[in-house]
Amino acid sequence: MAEFFYEGKRVYYEIHGDSGEPLVILNGIMMSTASWKSFIPNFSRNNIVILVDFLDQGQSERMTESYDHSLQVGVLETLIDLLPYEKVSVMGISYGGEIAIQYAVKRPERIRRLILANTACRTSDWLRKIGDGWNAVAKTGIGEAYYLTTIPVIYSTGFYEREKAWMDRREGTLIPYFSRPDVLESLIRLTDSSRDYDYTDRVGEISLPTLIISCSEDGLVPPTEQIMLHERIKGSHYVTINGSGHASMYEDPASFCALVLGFTNLLDDPITI
Amino acid sequence: MAEFFYEGKRVYYEIHGDSGEPLVILNGIMMSTASWKSFIPNFSRNNIVILVDFLDQGQSERMTESYDHSLQVGVLETLIDLLPYEKVSVMGISYGGEIAIQYAVKRPERIRRLILANTACRTSDWLRKIGDGWNAVAKTGIGEAYYLTTIPVIYSTGFYEREKAWMDRREGTLIPYFSRPDVLESLIRLTDSSRDYDYTDRVGEISLPTLIISCSEDGLVPPTEQIMLHERIKGSHYVTINGSGHASMYEDPASFCALVLGFTNLLDDPITI
Amino acid sequence: MAEFFYEGKRVYYEIHGDSGEPLVILNGIMMSTASWKSFIPNFSRNNIVILVDFLDQGQSERMTESYDHSLQVGVLETLIDLLPYEKVSVMGISYGGEIAIQYAVKRPERIRRLILANTACRTSDWLRKIGDGWNAVAKTGIGEAYYLTTIPVIYSTGFYEREKAWMDRREGTLIPYFSRPDVLESLIRLTDSSRDYDYTDRVGEISLPTLIISCSEDGLVPPTEQIMLHERIKGSHYVTINGSGHASMYEDPASFCALVLGFTNLLDDPITI
Amino acid sequence: MAEFFYEGKRVYYEIHGDSGEPLVILNGIMMSTASWKSFIPNFSRNNIVILVDFLDQGQSERMTESYDHSLQVGVLETLIDLLPYEKVSVMGISYGGEIAIQYAVKRPERIRRLILANTACRTSDWLRKIGDGWNAVAKTGIGEAYYLTTIPVIYSTGFYEREKAWMDRREGTLIPYFSRPDVLESLIRLTDSSRDYDYTDRVGEISLPTLIISCSEDGLVPPTEQIMLHERIKGSHYVTINGSGHASMYEDPASFCALVLGFTNLLDDPITI
Repeated sequence: MAEFFYEGKRVYYEIHGDSGEPLVILNGIMMSTASWKSFIPNFSRNNIVILVDFLDQGQSERMTESYDHSLQVGVLETLIDLLPYEKVSVMGISYGGEIAIQYAVKRPERIRRLILANTACRTSDWLRKIGDGWNAVAKTGIGEAYYLTTIPVIYSTGFYEREKAWMDRREGTLIPYFSRPDVLESLIRLTDSSRDYDYTDRVGEISLPTLIISCSEDGLVPPTEQIMLHERIKGSHYVTINGSGHASMYEDPASFCALVLGFTNLLDDPITI
Repeated sequence: MAEFFYEGKRVYYEIHGDSGEPLVILNGIMMSTASWKSFIPNFSRNNIVILVDFLDQGQSERMTESYDHSLQVGVLETLIDLLPYEKVSVMGISYGGEIAIQYAVKRPERIRRLILANTACRTSDWLRKIGDGWNAVAKTGIGEAYYLTTIPVIYSTGFYEREKAWMDRREGTLIPYFSRPDVLESLIRLTDSSRDYDYTDRVGEISLPTLIISCSEDGLVPPTEQIMLHERIKGSHYVTINGSGHASMYEDPASFCALVLGFTNLLDDPITI
Repeated sequence: MAEFFYEGKRVYYEIHGDSGEPLVILNGIMMSTASWKSFIPNFSRNNIVILVDFLDQGQSERMTESYDHSLQVGVLETLIDLLPYEKVSVMGISYGGEIAIQYAVKRPERIRRLILANTACRTSDWLRKIGDGWNAVAKTGIGEAYYLTTIPVIYSTGFYEREKAWMDRREGTLIPYFSRPDVLESLIRLTDSSRDYDYTDRVGEISLPTLIISCSEDGLVPPTEQIMLHERIKGSHYVTINGSGHASMYEDPASFCALVLGFTNLLDDPITI
Repeated sequence: MAEFFYEGKRVYYEIHGDSGEPLVILNGIMMSTASWKSFIPNFSRNNIVILVDFLDQGQSERMTESYDHSLQVGVLETLIDLLPYEKVSVMGISYGGEIAIQYAVKRPERIRRLILANTACRTSDWLRKIGDGWNAVAKTGIGEAYYLTTIPVIYSTGFYEREKAWMDRREGTLIPYFSRPDVLESLIRLTDSSRDYDYTDRVGEISLPTLIISCSEDGLVPPTEQIMLHERIKGSHYVTINGSGHASMYEDPASFCALVLGFTNLLDDPITI
């Protein structure tokens, strides 16, 4: 619906809703603005919501060379600078939460409230190996192997059982998609852009009203990582969606939306008991 | 601000807010409408919120004889019947959640969304003994002993450390209050009204959109009880406020409000991924 | 079966078993050597086990004036000094674990392995209030009120349901016992002896092989306290008995014994993978 | 050290220790008798321990065609039948625990005590996809991709950080090993042998003294699976090794050994409180 350019690359974004606190939504690594389609009626009920595809995602331009997170932080900074709001609330999930953390450290004066879902303050040694594995499989070019290596691990055992038909359809859609060399190349770059991410020390600079959303069955960014966030971000609020895996917005959309919108729409004055 | 009569007894209630989904808030056993004072700006921002004192609570009339939960379910039924809304959302915490469960089974057609915080579907053998202990101490008439027996257990260790000055002020207020025979008599009746509560079998009749809020440090109605609720109420959503004890609205008001208001303000259509 | 004197007071202890690693067992506050009767066949199968009543417990002498933990640490030091072993393993539960921590800091050269069950490194502000409540009720002299205030909270909801007949028998035994002024006076002193306990800083001096046993349903010394221990005692091992409350040795004797004996009987050389 | 034949295939096993309760140890899928080398001094201190390589593992014979779990249950049955003990205790981890469950249902009269570490009663839809992914990568023949896909997920984030040097050495050893076609073919068959495993209904037939060992950071067979086991096996004991991933024997050998040996060496008579 709209676009801007960052370092010569086209960035796609969408704005939905007429009034209310503006809320920027940042995608996980394999997501795009399209992933949020069914959330828009709720997101835009009492809020202006801004969706955006990072570079190498969705309808934004593909990159050709490797980069790190600072590229996407720049994308986000440019987006928020062009929006007509003094401050916005920002919700990032996983990769999006990592970019949100780095933006919040850099430009805290532009953020009203920060929501970090399934997010870590660093790429741990362990997660780096997981990402290396994804990329080693991507390099074989075999879409099915890539699907099986990257997608099931994102969901919980319980979701797989409850939503078997949906997962099967998803498999049918994603295997051909993951068989495209251009797609795999984008995913390799996106994954590699997280390799050296480490804000363990700097995340503590954040003093914004912050909500941390963890999921009990998140096997990719497990609760231990969100506990690290909570211990470092002073005054942060820390909730868990029980039974959900890493893709919390799909596993329990109602709890996810309730938390994101409920926290965004709190008044600025803290509730003093 | 308003009152009605139930079985000849005066019931006090308040309405705040101009528009939006109506939300009825049901107190925990030792709470009253006054407990929610600092929450009203948030509660009434996008919603009409109805607060009510159960009989033997706050500004509602004292009882003289013993009763069980059905009395308070009747109070709630009468309240909702006189409100000009086809449906309301209901949030009950602890004792209030127990009344909400029984009302939801009885009058599901009047509820839009149900939120159960720190709530169980029964008074377990264990909790009955805890309540018997409270009442045994109440019968000594010693306010300080009653305070020490009933209040600290409601909060988490971490809250006690973070909010020591607040807890000390509360102790200063509550010990004289708990030294009044009329107050102790009301509390004895309220506690006893839960003795035979057991909706273990019937809670499964609920098919409303339901959010269950559990707290990791709730030593009075521990997460095992909320897991029971979640397993029995089909399709219920189940989140945990980490680090909070039983009095979740005081320990983490922002997370509490975000969940309650966020869930209340979701659209009726489920989000279909 | 044996006794010694500490500061003029008689201390009762028992030794069971013929051979194997010696293991000293330290009681929780309301326990005594008699509490371990049914554990002796397992404890003494491959080990020499030493049971002891702290002063004001079981068959040891009653005190007349108030004291703090250092008294019981002295009892333990005297006991271990008179035993014919260069080193012993020490298992303390709750109050006993607190004494064990202080002894381990003072005399690490005498301990082979340390096991801390349901133990904290300090009396938190919260737990101090709980203890104050116990003592306020004790001072009423009403055995039933004291029983209801102190005993149910020690057990999990699940145990109460599984072992209702046992709990009822225990209530029948303990209410008359807790109605004796001398018993209540001992319990008041024992409880007060923990008021100022704070080894938060010093517990980190322990570098012994240490096993921390936590219980998921421990409402008195909740897992957050054992996490503190684990973070402070470098290299400590940290396990949870699921479903058990504070009285882990009664709620799940098999898991408790397996952990205590299994850890005690490991060889000195660490297992190098 | 010893061998027998099952359906014409050679099975390798070892016996260590002189006396005490006999204990059969069953490997996880990528393990072998060699994996337990450093555990033998502790295992054999007070016990006779029997290690065995399943077919397609370690020094047992390779298979050439696909099979299911019943093959390995047959191996175990044959092994126990040839041992000179009326009963043995059995500890199985992951794949080994699955075989143990099926054997325990089939031949309960031969088992004294059962220990299930990091084990499920079924291959969930989710886990089947994970296994399919492993095999899809194995079929590429790329040892590094297979290593990165299968090994990191077995360990916790914390272990990776604490034991980085060990993980690096392991990577150096395993990548060449996983580059051998014969090894990958065995691993493919072993993984496929679990595809249709489902003892969800039958596991409840087990009434042996059973200890379930779960690990808080097990991302492969998460605690939800062990909760299923615990709910189905009446009277089972359920403990958690905190901070450990799926490979619990490597992540916390002391806690692992303490639990396995401590539970094995309990007397037959239950501890009656």
